[in-house]
Amino acid sequence: MSQAQNRYKADLREFQFLLFEQFGIRDILSKEPFAAWGEDEIRMVLEETYRFATEVLGPLNAVGDREKCTLIDGRVKTPTGFPEAWKKLYEAGWRNLSGSEEFGGQGAPRTLQVLVEEMFSGSNVAFMMYPGLALGAAELIDHCGTPEQRRDFSGPIYRGEWGGTMCLTEPHAGSDVGAARTTARPVGDGSYKIQGTKIYISGGDHDCADNIVHLVLARIDGAEPGTKGLSLFIVPKKMPETGVLNDVKVASIEHKMGINGSATCVMQFGEEDACLGWLVGGVPHQGMKQMFQMMNYARIGVGIQGLAIGGAAYMAALDYARDRKQGSSISAWKDPAAPRVSILEHADVRRMLLDMKSRVEGIRALIVKLSMHQDRATGLVGKNDELAAYHFGQVELLTPIVKAYASDQSFRICETAVQVHGGAGYVQDYPVEQYLRDSKIFSIYEGTNHIQALDLVGRKLGQGGGKHTQDFFADVGRFVAAHGDHAVLGGSTKHLAKAQEAVGGAAFQFLGWFKGGEMERVPLNANRFLEMMSEFAVGWLLLEGASIAHEAQQKTEAGSKDWFFYEGKKQAAIFYANNVLPDVVGKAKMLGNGDRSPLDIPAESFASL
Amino acid sequence: MSQAQNRYKADLREFQFLLFEQFGIRDILSKEPFAAWGEDEIRMVLEETYRFATEVLGPLNAVGDREKCTLIDGRVKTPTGFPEAWKKLYEAGWRNLSGSEEFGGQGAPRTLQVLVEEMFSGSNVAFMMYPGLALGAAELIDHCGTPEQRRDFSGPIYRGEWGGTMCLTEPHAGSDVGAARTTARPVGDGSYKIQGTKIYISGGDHDCADNIVHLVLARIDGAEPGTKGLSLFIVPKKMPETGVLNDVKVASIEHKMGINGSATCVMQFGEEDACLGWLVGGVPHQGMKQMFQMMNYARIGVGIQGLAIGGAAYMAALDYARDRKQGSSISAWKDPAAPRVSILEHADVRRMLLDMKSRVEGIRALIVKLSMHQDRATGLVGKNDELAAYHFGQVELLTPIVKAYASDQSFRICETAVQVHGGAGYVQDYPVEQYLRDSKIFSIYEGTNHIQALDLVGRKLGQGGGKHTQDFFADVGRFVAAHGDHAVLGGSTKHLAKAQEAVGGAAFQFLGWFKGGEMERVPLNANRFLEMMSEFAVGWLLLEGASIAHEAQQKTEAGSKDWFFYEGKKQAAIFYANNVLPDVVGKAKMLGNGDRSPLDIPAESFASL
Repeated sequence: MSQAQNRYKADLREFQFLLFEQFGIRDILSKEPFAAWGEDEIRMVLEETYRFATEVLGPLNAVGDREKCTLIDGRVKTPTGFPEAWKKLYEAGWRNLSGSEEFGGQGAPRTLQVLVEEMFSGSNVAFMMYPGLALGAAELIDHCGTPEQRRDFSGPIYRGEWGGTMCLTEPHAGSDVGAARTTARPVGDGSYKIQGTKIYISGGDHDCADNIVHLVLARIDGAEPGTKGLSLFIVPKKMPETGVLNDVKVASIEHKMGINGSATCVMQFGEEDACLGWLVGGVPHQGMKQMFQMMNYARIGVGIQGLAIGGAAYMAALDYARDRKQGSSISAWKDPAAPRVSILEHADVRRMLLDMKSRVEGIRALIVKLSMHQDRATGLVGKNDELAAYHFGQVELLTPIVKAYASDQSFRICETAVQVHGGAGYVQDYPVEQYLRDSKIFSIYEGTNHIQALDLVGRKLGQGGGKHTQDFFADVGRFVAAHGDHAVLGGSTKHLAKAQEAVGGAAFQFLGWFKGGEMERVPLNANRFLEMMSEFAVGWLLLEGASIAHEAQQKTEAGSKDWFFYEGKKQAAIFYANNVLPDVVGKAKMLGNGDRSPLDIPAESFASL
Repeated sequence: MSQAQNRYKADLREFQFLLFEQFGIRDILSKEPFAAWGEDEIRMVLEETYRFATEVLGPLNAVGDREKCTLIDGRVKTPTGFPEAWKKLYEAGWRNLSGSEEFGGQGAPRTLQVLVEEMFSGSNVAFMMYPGLALGAAELIDHCGTPEQRRDFSGPIYRGEWGGTMCLTEPHAGSDVGAARTTARPVGDGSYKIQGTKIYISGGDHDCADNIVHLVLARIDGAEPGTKGLSLFIVPKKMPETGVLNDVKVASIEHKMGINGSATCVMQFGEEDACLGWLVGGVPHQGMKQMFQMMNYARIGVGIQGLAIGGAAYMAALDYARDRKQGSSISAWKDPAAPRVSILEHADVRRMLLDMKSRVEGIRALIVKLSMHQDRATGLVGKNDELAAYHFGQVELLTPIVKAYASDQSFRICETAVQVHGGAGYVQDYPVEQYLRDSKIFSIYEGTNHIQALDLVGRKLGQGGGKHTQDFFADVGRFVAAHGDHAVLGGSTKHLAKAQEAVGGAAFQFLGWFKGGEMERVPLNANRFLEMMSEFAVGWLLLEGASIAHEAQQKTEAGSKDWFFYEGKKQAAIFYANNVLPDVVGKAKMLGNGDRSPLDIPAESFASL
């Protein structure tokens, strides 16, 4: 294992900028519901998280990839060091950073949590699948379960004693969740007998915790077809009190392209007709609703994973570009005796790095923005419900954007990181080829990115009579109005204004298709629209950050570390405005040209065999 | 190994269309230099190649990936079945399809050869690296060697008795080849003692052939620095006559992201100061020139690899989309009891498939076009040298485009193929995740794609006083003039015309930068320009094909197999014109907006650590 593989890096200065300078986290600190959290606590947690990520999780990242998980006698063995890392993670105490105090949680802002998750996932995304899924299960039971279920199941998971999973997908029910065939038969004592096969179950079994709580979507005998007839069941691997094994088997584990340290299992429930489960909250036919409550967090979580790997890939590429000497400066390119320079001096490498930097920082800003909406809303409930509704609305609108854009771009950022490395990017001595492989799953799981696009255009865009969208546009509009003549960022802001016009026009086009009965154009163009909205949102937040950086830079000593940091924020925003935002306008034109070729082509015409 | 993994597919109807209907290969058949080749021979070779690809090479593709190469006692062991496949390949006789008859070659058109290479590489790109590199070495010695070298080295390689390699890259000399430190010391008898380390040597050792001929770039003591001082040496693994081992060692093999069946070696020449080599052609300081002669073919070869894997990924995704049932038709999406349909019926899947189809077919058309230029030029030399020069000029111009665009798009096509598969795309039961991993190297080796972009804008664009470029524009211009009012393709042709205008403007912009001393803008924008030229060229050839398909379709029975085939050609061209060509215009605008942010950002501003 070379040293380069273990060297996860994150730029904490950037995290601090987002929290304290751009998104004003001080507004919500030191008062309810975050009374225990001040600026010092935030900074301390970021630093300690970074230490844990680099010292404990990072060194296991390549190990997990190479060693992979193995299925031995029906049980999953995780890679060397994973069970110990799990133990250390929970002992360190902040696994449950933003959880409720009832279960030992520390009630931290989500905004802090997402940056913590970024560092944990950035250093070892495969490992973090285990505690990540566990947290999701604990929170779901915490929100939807009976008091006994919360005590008996959420508690031990929060404490890291047990793991947890989400069991939705079946061989014939992927994106089409409602086609699930897993059945639940009432036993009579409140429990159900569960039977069915679930696939792609992350952490379906592992050796990090003593027990695993599966949340299983199943159809109670006689319930209606489709998603409405699905119920959610708590199905423990072992019975909580007796420790007796339930009828839950790992049929096999997948051999995958990446996230090899995470066991992806085919689960067999009730092979011997002896698998017992209990309805979450004791209520039937609420499975999708319950699952969806958590799904939103899970989707944001995937966006964070995308950010995390993209961010790690950027830092790795930057390190490589600084170290690697190749070629001479362009001013001396014809002189073979000219001194060799670091490739960071070559225009194309700088272009690739600034491209990565702008995407990573823009996506991070978007995720922090979304989380600040969550945190602000939480503090406003009961005090100013209208304002809280605004914030909740933005969370709804931005969630599919964060999931899809961060995941798609993560892969592209990794692709660029590989290219910066040249041949070194293709070999396992450097971490970027693993990042590329790991990141490819993000566009697929927790709802493929097309599902996200449909969620955006089919639900979120018109939700509340289109209010979330209008609020969002108003927020950007205020920035555009204030910065169109900015000395440094005025030209870039004009690109943003044009993008706004283009996205607005495209939104109306969708409205027309919905109303005009041209429904088939909606899925055809949904992904493109999601990209447009994403680039528009990211462009805005990059420029907002740059304008703040510009102000701060005026008060900073030229050539100081902070001065360079602020300059980087500005150049990243300018790059994105010049090189990405014009594409939003281009995409709007394409959306408007009425192309129907994918609908028109006969199925027989895709190939002659 | 699941069945899906072995099922390489190619659409021979498409190959026949390109050869016989679009690019008029009949013009050059049955006369010199292709007198032995008629239509029947061409068709027969395509069919037999396909059979060999599916029956012999395809089944070893996943085997090679999983088993990988191993280094045992300093010698490389290739995956199970590779040595047998090598033997069968040469026994089948057409490994040397377009080679000279002196060495048992069959003198076939290059145009046929590229489609043969597509099928061989599409079914097993890692395996094909061994005979591919060997052929390159044989051809180089054939073209540049002394008569004795041709007999002693090219002959055995052509016959498949020996392998061959190209040894350029060193730890400190990648893109910067001229920085090579490997030395050559004259012994006095015409031989040289070679000393140095070469890295990333494909097939540096293997067990498919009895001997391996390394072509090694080295600097003769006292030669000038940079590329001009480099000479090319023939360095056999074993001495041809005695069989005594030369001082050539495999220091290690790389662990890579993909093409795992191909051994990528670190080679140590002259560790015991006993490595003997001979100057290719007996002439010193001609190494780069000699290497470059072959490098052009090698670059086209990488383009073919990109096409091959992209094409295989498209066919795999199409197969999956036809088989996989998920969800209901959009007209019944609210009815959970509606029948499930194949995902080929969903708009977004159709969009992804048509996107892949158009890129694959467009790149294939571009490669066949380039090869037809080669073949026509070959037949014209000495008869019509001016016309031959036109054809050779187009080969020069299109080579970097083919290498870079095919390789970049190959990876994107594989990405889309994975997405069509959903979760199945991420697991090794299906072939697409391997395609994605294998394809990532294409943008890096044989000159990174930025090197290609620099070759295009710095050399090819202005070569012969800009004549190649002007000829190319004139060719497209004739098509645009003739089809702007086409009943079906007129709108698409207008997109092509706009793209032409945009590319032309961008070319002048580069001219201005060269002349105006703004040299640093050239590398900054070179990749974008290469993309624009590529999309423009591909859009043209797709539309040309579509116009031919349209004519042919009129004479074809509606609903027949050929009718559907022609319809597919048309829809693919329309899709590309509507969804890709407008981007060329967008890119020209970005190129013109004068963004300097990657040049302006201080090195310290990329990150705070």
